[in-house]
Parts: sequence; C-alpha cells; structure tokens
Amino acid sequence: MKVGIIMGSKSDWPTMQNAAQMLEQFGIAYETKVVSAHRTPHLLAQYAEQACERGIKVIIAGAGGAAHLPGMAAAFTSLPVLGVPVKSKALNGVDSLLSIAQMPKGVAVGTLAIGDPGAANAGLLAAQILATSDVELMAKIDAFRKTQTETVLANPDPSED
Amino acid sequence: MKVGIIMGSKSDWPTMQNAAQMLEQFGIAYETKVVSAHRTPHLLAQYAEQACERGIKVIIAGAGGAAHLPGMAAAFTSLPVLGVPVKSKALNGVDSLLSIAQMPKGVAVGTLAIGDPGAANAGLLAAQILATSDVELMAKIDAFRKTQTETVLANPDPSED
Amino acid sequence: MKVGIIMGSKSDWPTMQNAAQMLEQFGIAYETKVVSAHRTPHLLAQYAEQACERGIKVIIAGAGGAAHLPGMAAAFTSLPVLGVPVKSKALNGVDSLLSIAQMPKGVAVGTLAIGDPGAANAGLLAAQILATSDVELMAKIDAFRKTQTETVLANPDPSED
Amino acid sequence: MKVGIIMGSKSDWPTMQNAAQMLEQFGIAYETKVVSAHRTPHLLAQYAEQACERGIKVIIAGAGGAAHLPGMAAAFTSLPVLGVPVKSKALNGVDSLLSIAQMPKGVAVGTLAIGDPGAANAGLLAAQILATSDVELMAKIDAFRKTQTETVLANPDPSED
Amino acid sequence: MKVGIIMGSKSDWPTMQNAAQMLEQFGIAYETKVVSAHRTPHLLAQYAEQACERGIKVIIAGAGGAAHLPGMAAAFTSLPVLGVPVKSKALNGVDSLLSIAQMPKGVAVGTLAIGDPGAANAGLLAAQILATSDVELMAKIDAFRKTQTETVLANPDPSED
Amino acid sequence: MKVGIIMGSKSDWPTMQNAAQMLEQFGIAYETKVVSAHRTPHLLAQYAEQACERGIKVIIAGAGGAAHLPGMAAAFTSLPVLGVPVKSKALNGVDSLLSIAQMPKGVAVGTLAIGDPGAANAGLLAAQILATSDVELMAKIDAFRKTQTETVLANPDPSED
Amino acid sequence: MKVGIIMGSKSDWPTMQNAAQMLEQFGIAYETKVVSAHRTPHLLAQYAEQACERGIKVIIAGAGGAAHLPGMAAAFTSLPVLGVPVKSKALNGVDSLLSIAQMPKGVAVGTLAIGDPGAANAGLLAAQILATSDVELMAKIDAFRKTQTETVLANPDPSED
Amino acid sequence: MKVGIIMGSKSDWPTMQNAAQMLEQFGIAYETKVVSAHRTPHLLAQYAEQACERGIKVIIAGAGGAAHLPGMAAAFTSLPVLGVPVKSKALNGVDSLLSIAQMPKGVAVGTLAIGDPGAANAGLLAAQILATSDVELMAKIDAFRKTQTETVLANPDPSED
Repeated sequence: MKVGIIMGSKSDWPTMQNAAQMLEQFGIAYETKVVSAHRTPHLLAQYAEQACERGIKVIIAGAGGAAHLPGMAAAFTSLPVLGVPVKSKALNGVDSLLSIAQMPKGVAVGTLAIGDPGAANAGLLAAQILATSDVELMAKIDAFRKTQTETVLANPDPSED
Repeated sequence: MKVGIIMGSKSDWPTMQNAAQMLEQFGIAYETKVVSAHRTPHLLAQYAEQACERGIKVIIAGAGGAAHLPGMAAAFTSLPVLGVPVKSKALNGVDSLLSIAQMPKGVAVGTLAIGDPGAANAGLLAAQILATSDVELMAKIDAFRKTQTETVLANPDPSED
Repeated sequence: MKVGIIMGSKSDWPTMQNAAQMLEQFGIAYETKVVSAHRTPHLLAQYAEQACERGIKVIIAGAGGAAHLPGMAAAFTSLPVLGVPVKSKALNGVDSLLSIAQMPKGVAVGTLAIGDPGAANAGLLAAQILATSDVELMAKIDAFRKTQTETVLANPDPSED
Repeated sequence: MKVGIIMGSKSDWPTMQNAAQMLEQFGIAYETKVVSAHRTPHLLAQYAEQACERGIKVIIAGAGGAAHLPGMAAAFTSLPVLGVPVKSKALNGVDSLLSIAQMPKGVAVGTLAIGDPGAANAGLLAAQILATSDVELMAKIDAFRKTQTETVLANPDPSED
Repeated sequence: MKVGIIMGSKSDWPTMQNAAQMLEQFGIAYETKVVSAHRTPHLLAQYAEQACERGIKVIIAGAGGAAHLPGMAAAFTSLPVLGVPVKSKALNGVDSLLSIAQMPKGVAVGTLAIGDPGAANAGLLAAQILATSDVELMAKIDAFRKTQTETVLANPDPSED
Repeated sequence: MKVGIIMGSKSDWPTMQNAAQMLEQFGIAYETKVVSAHRTPHLLAQYAEQACERGIKVIIAGAGGAAHLPGMAAAFTSLPVLGVPVKSKALNGVDSLLSIAQMPKGVAVGTLAIGDPGAANAGLLAAQILATSDVELMAKIDAFRKTQTETVLANPDPSED
Repeated sequence: MKVGIIMGSKSDWPTMQNAAQMLEQFGIAYETKVVSAHRTPHLLAQYAEQACERGIKVIIAGAGGAAHLPGMAAAFTSLPVLGVPVKSKALNGVDSLLSIAQMPKGVAVGTLAIGDPGAANAGLLAAQILATSDVELMAKIDAFRKTQTETVLANPDPSED
Repeated sequence: MKVGIIMGSKSDWPTMQNAAQMLEQFGIAYETKVVSAHRTPHLLAQYAEQACERGIKVIIAGAGGAAHLPGMAAAFTSLPVLGVPVKSKALNGVDSLLSIAQMPKGVAVGTLAIGDPGAANAGLLAAQILATSDVELMAKIDAFRKTQTETVLANPDPSED
C-alpha cells in the first residue's frame, strides 16, 4: 500500500476514481477510504498519523466546499499530501480550490486542478513522487508521457473523429 | 468562562480583539487562546471537546486563508461555533470567507463578516445566543442596540465632524 | 414555537425546508412564513420585533440575490438571526452570500453555506443555540452527531453503493 | 428639496459628497442625512415613506458591504431610488455592488458605479430624472455635457499636463 | 412613446420583454428596437440623439457580455438611461453587470439586476421616473406595490402550492 | 503615422506611454490622443472612421472601468484594434478586462494584459502586425526578442542585484 | 497558408471551428492542427518557430483551463498570436481568459472573448491583420461589416422571429 | 543538488527565497535560477529535460500573472513539479493561482498558496517528497513540525507580544 486515497464523502468517488485509475496504470498499490474531516475528525487524525508506519508514502485527499480534508490530513502527518478540489454544487469548486490551496506556512498541501483532471493528476503526481526513488517507476512514467505525446501527434486533425 | 475566543495565530489578534471588546461591553466572561488547526491539531481537538464540560457555551474562532479553525472546532464539539474570516494577505479574506462559510451538511459554523466588523459581531452574536436563556443579558443587548440607534439619530448630518 | 423560519419567497422553500427537517429531527417547535424584506417590509419589522415576546428564540432567514431579509430581520430584533444564502439564478448565490455575511459592526447575522447544506446547518445551529440552556437537547445533538460519525465509519468504501 | 441623499454612516460622506456637488452644479435643492438600514431601520422606513409627501422626487442612497440601505429605501417608497455602492474595506465594493444591484423583481434600485464616480453619477442621473419634466434643467444638463465634451476636445494631448 | 427599449440583439428579447410587460401594466407607451452598439453604432448615435425630440423620456438598454449599449446610449443623450445586464453565456452576466455599472464620472447609467428581474425592474424604475411628474401614474405604482405586498401577505405559507 | 494610440483620459497616460515607448523602440511612427467613448463619442466615431484613410494601420485603445473605448473604436473601423485594460480604482482592472475582452461575434478587439505590461505588449503586438508585411521590421522584432532572451540568460542568479 | 489555427485538444474544435469558418468567409487559406503545450511541447516549439518561414502570417491558438498554448506559441515566434479562451468545465473559461490575457511584458498575445464569439473574432482579427497590407481583403472586411450592419438594420423588431 | 528552484523573473526572488530558506533548514542541496517560460523557452525546455539526469529530484517553479513556468516545466520532465503562484500586481495572484493549478489531465503541477507562505511550503513539500525515501530527512521534518507545534503551545496568549 503506497498511496492512500481519502475523500470526504462517497459522492466524491466519481471524481476521485480518476486518481485510482492513474495509479493502477502504473501498478502502484493504493487504498481508498471515506474519511470526513468534519464528521469523522478522530478517524482522520488516526488515519493520517498512522499512515507513515503503515507504509503509505503519499496521501491523496479530495474534498469539496469548505474542503478541510487535505489540509487537516497534512496537519497530522509529515507525509506529502496532495489535495483535489472537488467541484462544489454552488460555486463549481472555487471554494474547494481556495480552501485547499491557501494553506499557511508550515503545513503544505500540493493542490491539483478542480475535478476529474485534478484527481487524475493527483494520481500522476503521487507516482512521480514515488519515482524519485524508484527508477523502474520513473521509466514507466516516461513511457506513459511518451505515449501521451504520441497519441496527440498521431491525431493532429482536430476536425476528424 | 462563557465564551472561548480562539484564533490560528497571534497575527489574528488585532482583528479578534474586537470580539473580546464586545463581550466585555456586556460583562460576559471569556478566554482567548491561540489554537492552530494546522500546527496544533491535537490542542484544537482537546480544546473543542472539553469546552462544553469546562462551561463554555459558545466558541468564536477566527482564521485567515485556508481558515480551517472554525470548521474543525465545530467538528469536535456540539457547542455553537461562530467563525470570523480574517482578512488574508493576497485575497483580502475571500478565501477565508468561503472556507469558513461553505461547510457541509451536518457540521455548522455561523459565519460573520470579513475582518473587524465580523469579529465585533461574533462577540455580539455570542451575547445574543447567551441571552436566549438570560433575560438580564437580553435587556443589556436591547439597551446596547437602543444606544447604537440613538447615536446615529443624534448625529444625522454626514458632513459635520 | 422556538424557531421562526422566514424566507423572501415561496421559491426559497425547497432550500429552506432543509432547516425545518433538521429542527423536526430534534423535536424543536418551529414556524415557517414567507416574509419579504422588499415586498412586505412592515411585516418583516413586525415579525422581527414581536418574535421575542412570542417566545421565538432564534430566527432563521433565507433569501437569494440582494438577500436583505436576514440583515433586516437582525435590524429589528435582539434575537440571534441565522442567514441562509439561497442559490441565485445568475450568480449561484455568491451575491446572496456576500449580502448576508458582510454586515456592519453592531448588527450581526450568523451566515451559513449557500443552498441546501446551509439551510440544514441553520436548523442544526439553531438547535445548538437552544441547547446552550437545554441539557436534554444537547444530548440529542450529541447523539445526532455520533450517529452521523458512525454512518461514515460504517461505510468506508467509496466505490460501493 | 428635490433630492434626498442618505447614507449608512458618516464614513460614507467623502464618497457621497460627490452626489451633492453634482446636484449643486445644476442648482437642485437637496438634503443629506445619515440613515442606517441596520441601526435605524424605523428612521429609514419613516424617511422613505414620507419622502414623497415632503416633495422629494428622487432618493440617492449610498452604502457599503451588505449595503441594504438603497434596497430597503426602495421597499418603503414608490419614488425612484438610486444606489451608490461605497467601496468596502475588505472587498473593494464588490459586495456593495452585488447587494445593491441584485434586487428581486418588483422593487427597483438604479445602481451606479462603485465609489466617487458612482456618487457623482447618482447626482447626475437624479438631475436627468428631474429634467424629464423640466426643460430648463434639461438645457443645463445639455450644457454640462457639452462643456464636458469640449474640455476633452481642448486637451487632446495625453502627455502634457 | 415615453420609453424606448433597445437591445443589442434579438436574443436579448426573452429577457427584455419583462421590461415591456411592466410598462404595459402601467399603460405606458413604449417602443422596442434592436440597436447594436457594435454592429450599428451610427443607428445607436442617431437613436439616442433623437430620442428626446421624439418625446422619449427614458431609455432602457439591455445587453450582454461587453455590453456597451447602455453606456454608449448615455453618451449620446441627456435622457436618463437604465441598463439591464443580460445573462451572458460564459460568465452568467458578471461581465455585463460590470461593463454597464462601472461608468466613469460624467455619463451615468442606472443599472438593474442581471437578467429577467433586472429587465422587469427597468420597466418599473422607468415608470417611477415618469411618475415624478405624473400624479396619476404615481398612484398606479402605489397600487401595484400595494397589490404586490398583499399577494405576499395572502400567501404566507411557503410549503403550500 | 502607422499606429494611433488613444485613451479615455489623461489619467491613462502613465499606463499607455508603455505602448508608445515600445513603438519608439522599433522606430514606428505613432500618434497619441485623448478620445473618450463617453464624453466625446463623435470624436471617437470620426477618429476610428478616418484612421484607415489617414494611413493608420493599427489602433491601440486603453481604458479603465466600463472601458468601452476599444470596443467602440472597433465598431467604427475595419482596422485591427488592440485593447489595454487600465487598472481601475475599485476593481483593479477586472472590470476593464471583461469589458474589453468579452466582445460579441462580428466586432473584434485583441485584448492585452491589465496595466503597464498590457500597454507595452499592445505596442509590441502592433509592431508584430505591421511586420507581417515588413521584413525589416520583423527582423527588428526578432532582434528585440533575442536581446530580451539574452538579457535573461546573462543574469541567471535571482539573488544578485 | 496564411493563418495557423492550433488548439490543445480535439475537444476544442467545436469552439475553434468558428475561427476557421470566419477565415473561409474571407477566402483566407488556413490550416488547423492539434498542438498541445503540455503534451507536445516540442511540436509546439517547432510549429511556432517554423510558422514564419512556412508563410504563416498569424497564429490563432485556442485552449482552456491553464491554457498555456497561446502564450507559449508567442514565446517561440515573432508572428502575431491571437488567443481564444475555451470555456472550461469547472470555471467557465475565467481561468482560460486570465491565463491567456495576463502575459508579462515582452511576449504578447491578443486575447479574444471566451468561447465561440472569441474564436469567430480571432478569425476576423486575423483577417483584419492580413488586410493591413492587402487592400482587396480590407474591402472584403468592409463589405462583411456593412452586411452585418444591414442585417441588424433590416430586422429591428426584437419580438418577431 | 536535489531541488531546482526556478522563477520567471528576478522580481520573484523575494517570494521564492522562502522556498530556499525552508530547504536550507533541512540541509537539502538546491540551486536557484531565473528561467522564463516566455523569454527563454529553450532554456526552460533544456533545464527541465536535463534536470533528472543532473540528479534533481524535485523542481519548484514560481511565477506570476499568466504564470506558465510551472506547467511548462512539467511538460518537459517526469520529475514532480511544485508551483508557487507569485502575487501579481493587478490581480493579487488569482491569475497566477488559476494558471498554475488548472492543468489538464496528464501533466501535473502540485500548487501551493499564493506568495510567501506558498513558497515556504513548496520548500517543505519538496522536503517531504525527498523524505519518502530518506528516513533521516523524515525525522528532521517530524522534528521541525514538532517544534512548530511547541512554539504555538508555548505562546497561547494572543494579546501578549
């Protein structure tokens, strides 16, 4: 279990599964869990505090609205925490983005884009972090990036399906 | 000690002292303490969880930026929590306001205005809450409001000092 | 009748019924009424001024757009007023939120989140306010919160229905 | 007394005096008064309700932040009400602008720009309104506009003092 | 013909017809015309410059996006101009609102709310302006407002259809 | 005279002189003039309509707030118009940016950044436009760009003066 | 091949085809290509650097979200670059607009409106740029603008289909 | 050399030095360099592409306004890239934040807060990333965090200096 993907509610799963799919693509072991900063704060403390000794290397946390989950996870661990602003109902995720990104000095969250692309990129960035000490994984990421580039190059005409 | 005023950093005091001054005006006992959601999360949990048994009736929490303090205090207590968005350096408190106000269903924070007026009104609203079971305090608030009205009525000319 | 729920228009009811449902959950007596700050300002003055003597302890006011209802209710009473920013058609409730939250020093409104979660939390915060002088109600809120926590803990897997 | 200029606080005077100066330029009689929607709601009701019988033709109302004054003045009178969003401390008048402009159907406020230009233009628009039934005043406004145009035409070089 | 309702495009009609309907309610003669600031600038100049001599008393101009129509109409006439920010496709009318409201000192536009309520209120405010010199019309507006109030008072229960 | 730089007010000159300086750098003849969309609309029409026959190839228009100048210049000419959003007092140029950029289909303005960098780049883009039919000018721009690159390369250490 | 239309993804085509259609209307040769700043940065460098020698006179680049394509194209060429902010999923193109418009001094992008109108106007502005050295094309643009004006003038009644 | 700190301009150094100071605190070797996405795009490509083979493990990139540097660095490397939105002159860094955070799926940037706190936290997060494979460094971070907590706990009184 290298990466822990947590989210404030089951309703965040359609977004956060993009992180899971990205990690699967690289063969990285992960777990997913609903952990709510507001409804289960003790679980959050326990999860974040024990993550390191359980072998977790990176925590990905997704939340919408007040979106305290990523920042509070970071408050309880020294592991790198990546935050995904889930699109909120009224404000489209602007609230989520600001709540996650605007952390004070001393407790950091690496924030990704709002919604699906952000969740996918949280998985990718977690892989890149793990790859800083895993040459094989770095090669997989290089290959993924190369394929991605080639897919664009192979389909240069925007008007054809 | 009826009201606990907490804030994420000493730099919030110039704003939050407005809450203290308002409570003093009504003779309401209060305490002030630096409690950081991100740097002292365990203290926050302990403070909020023990507040009720210590006799605290209302918690006022001020914070800026990601501003998780009010929402996380609310996560650890059933007491009413009032949140004051402190004006942030880059975004003037828009981030603080959204982070405090946009709480999910099930854990509530009563949010006041950004900055000094919001802190003063947090003190006033705390007094109003206590006054729901304290007729004498309600009379004091009525008197405060009446004086406030009379001050405006007595100085109707905007152009004179 | 402990809580008065007012709103500017019948069209606010789908949102504001979330406040009513929350109060019912705690067995708190409430009334609901359409009171428009702009179309029935005298009714608003009368409602807010008489609320205290009618035994109302907390007023919950929901409105969208210019959303003057909560602030004006607060101008006519010393009771605590909670404001719910109803999602507006053009601006998704940003206008409602700012109009309700940005009150000047001396007249306070405790503002909740935009839309349904905010209305539900207005009901919850009203209950928390009443519970400051009602031990039994506080126990009910503790139980509600505990159940809420356990519901999350019992369903930790985000990907299962 | 043709125009009533009201504002929520003496601190709005540096902005609102621009409205007064514009009216003076056209020789239009006006009065200025501090009337607070939140601190003196009964005075506001009285002022707005009696304005018509006192001969007032147009009300100019300036306010900042939650800025309920223009909308509530409009709620108590059938006279045209012009609203000036005063620049607010934290949000630079965005809150004032939205609170004043986003009125619901059935109670109208003609909103001007944030701050000094808006206050001056409230005076100008009030003059234009009065001029719809005053040919001499319309001629004065035409002359004012012509002079304004000629001043620009006479100084076409942006780089010279 | 007392009121001229102009708009930048036929696509603004669903919004702007709310202004027309309001004027009809008061029996005020009006005309409607597509006049585009950007595509027919000469027509705009001609329309605005001749409006006064054609007997027009108030111009209502609706536009979306860059929304230059109201401000440019005001540039070519001394008549009062009311601006309606039409909801824009990408930005929901925030751009329209700012473009119409933020006029410089010396050329005024009275701005209404974004979309349908703003258009209806432009019609209402035009009527209020005309009523400053028309006692009968003022009585009609008073009656309209009274009916509006009574309709709310007669249907106080938000939960019933 | 290849480029006409116009602006709504002398107060825009400190910003707009950046456009002039950039053009001077390339030896491109230009003129500067105060032309106000709102205060001198006929001058604007005349200026824009005659620009082409006077030999002007590109118009640069700077304005703040409602900022109708660039869009209205474009309405009166088929020449390319570049718009510079001048930083506004209350809203820092967000209003200027939206008013200039959000033009409807059929009348185009090429919008640059808010303030000084935008004005300088308007001069640069005007030069690039002229260079599409002027090989020598294109070479000068290439050289300018190369020098710009080399200046960065020659000073890679951010911490030294 | 006078104009190169590039876009970050095939999903931008429904927007960007508006640019292509506008160019076709004027008989201007163009090419369209998917070039991604993030997934094919080398292709972007190559495309932009070789555009001039391939005879391209203007580059139109459309992108959404972080939207680096127009600014990076401009970094690699001295040709004029026009940027189209494609409407983004979460933020409706506000992010795209700011990312494209807020370029630093020394590398310019002429930014158009968000979405379809912006893309169409990018085509139009590209034509206007080419017309600065092509009298026949300028005549075509004049004719297009004249027809556009006449179409509005011929259909002045907003309420008829 | 474990961490490369790059920034678009020397003017970003007062912000970005906070990242350097944080790394020094943990004894992590780093380099700092001015690399401009727009003025030195080839240097950026070269820097990012060679970073991995030069032993760099994490890139920290700071930029303001259009702020393409972090995203484009990420486009040229598989190393984790952290982005710092530098406070911009007109928009206080909102533009920088959106440009850096809103990356499309497939190329990730971990975004920190606007300005100084964000730069400091970029240094901290880089350290946390390196610590995923460096037990000693993780211990240092734990100690830093513990000290940070104790500093708050030792100074709980907000009103004393």
